[in-house]
Amino acid sequence: MKITTYPTYAHADGSDLAGRTAVVIDLLRATSTIATALHNGCRRVIPVEDKNDALEKAKSHTGCDGVVTGGERDGVKLTGFDLGNSPLEYGRSKIAGKCLVMCTSNGTHAVKKAMAAKEVYLGCLNNADAVAKKAAQSGRDIAIVCAGTRLKFSVDDIAAAGAIISRIVKTAGPAAMDDLSRTALRLYEENKKNLHPLISGSRPYRTLMRLGAGEDIDYCLLEDILDTVPMCEGEEII
Amino acid sequence: MKITTYPTYAHADGSDLAGRTAVVIDLLRATSTIATALHNGCRRVIPVEDKNDALEKAKSHTGCDGVVTGGERDGVKLTGFDLGNSPLEYGRSKIAGKCLVMCTSNGTHAVKKAMAAKEVYLGCLNNADAVAKKAAQSGRDIAIVCAGTRLKFSVDDIAAAGAIISRIVKTAGPAAMDDLSRTALRLYEENKKNLHPLISGSRPYRTLMRLGAGEDIDYCLLEDILDTVPMCEGEEII
Repeated sequence: MKITTYPTYAHADGSDLAGRTAVVIDLLRATSTIATALHNGCRRVIPVEDKNDALEKAKSHTGCDGVVTGGERDGVKLTGFDLGNSPLEYGRSKIAGKCLVMCTSNGTHAVKKAMAAKEVYLGCLNNADAVAKKAAQSGRDIAIVCAGTRLKFSVDDIAAAGAIISRIVKTAGPAAMDDLSRTALRLYEENKKNLHPLISGSRPYRTLMRLGAGEDIDYCLLEDILDTVPMCEGEEII
Repeated sequence: MKITTYPTYAHADGSDLAGRTAVVIDLLRATSTIATALHNGCRRVIPVEDKNDALEKAKSHTGCDGVVTGGERDGVKLTGFDLGNSPLEYGRSKIAGKCLVMCTSNGTHAVKKAMAAKEVYLGCLNNADAVAKKAAQSGRDIAIVCAGTRLKFSVDDIAAAGAIISRIVKTAGPAAMDDLSRTALRLYEENKKNLHPLISGSRPYRTLMRLGAGEDIDYCLLEDILDTVPMCEGEEII
């Protein structure tokens, strides 16, 4: 088994991903939010890149006990959407039984891109252990696709990649890794007692602090609290 | 002053670099070798991307006490070239007074790309302090352009970037940094007592070990032993 980490989805092309198991990470906050929504009874998530397409898709979608639209740009809820991108908004009362049409700055683009892989899971710190087990069990080479921020390296995603890689190695034993995987693992191991200082300079961290969403960060940094592993099926996440 | 770090030269385009001071890093080994050659009396270095072009250029070049061709692919000296890419080959007896036409796997491409910046310096650990002072004194925003390995993140270059950033900050005071600059600085600070474990998994490190060139690695990890700062002037490095 080989583990390769991509700093942003723009760095991973279809031929890199073909035949592999992909784990998409957008720690702050898309993959944390989607894992939480599914854990709280959301039936399926439809990732959409364009906000108008999202509203159109929500109108025409059937097959659940209603549709919820969720999304943000630069941390702020999109106009006309039901919910933003805070995992704390996606409680059972809001989301159980419903479909979620989701549009975010980086995460939904990353998920769309990763769909070139054989299997696609969504990972975060909340489900680090569970997603690592799924990926390890696939027996395939693993591509960790970080969402990044505005197509740039974002250390919050890299820290979460390190957490997931540490658990993959614990489950599956030593793996061949590329240099960014090894560096992510080292950064995580060196900082896991308190990840805040490591990631506090990242753009999404600073944006959320500026918006008064420190609670979201605290929640997204909780490790292994969810056993839900979001998985792509066709164009949807279940 | 703002510091931005690019994991490979492919990630930095001309518009990113325009008006800035660029520091190109290919720790193992191009920028270490070029700094050493110039320190040992080499008059100028002509970076060339294609090996046949390099041999042609060497034939037609005038204006020095002779021309030396240097270059490698995947760590091995190119056929028909005088020297490889080991800094230990570039002693005074070989290079003093001469021009060096240089062709390497990643470093010369990175230098060519960085020429879109206002000023371009070549940095490594050997000249970390000297290049940091030059960059800080420029007063411009700084772009650290890592060569990377085969267009991928390579932690050896990132560690050297962290070393140079630590010295820029020491000279110029706190600077605005992008996320990769901050991460590079942290990796360096956490591992500076012994950089070998951090970089030992990187492809160039492993290639050099396999080729029995451990002495080159030891040399390239010596910090602040050279006060020479290679600098681009037109198409050449002086």
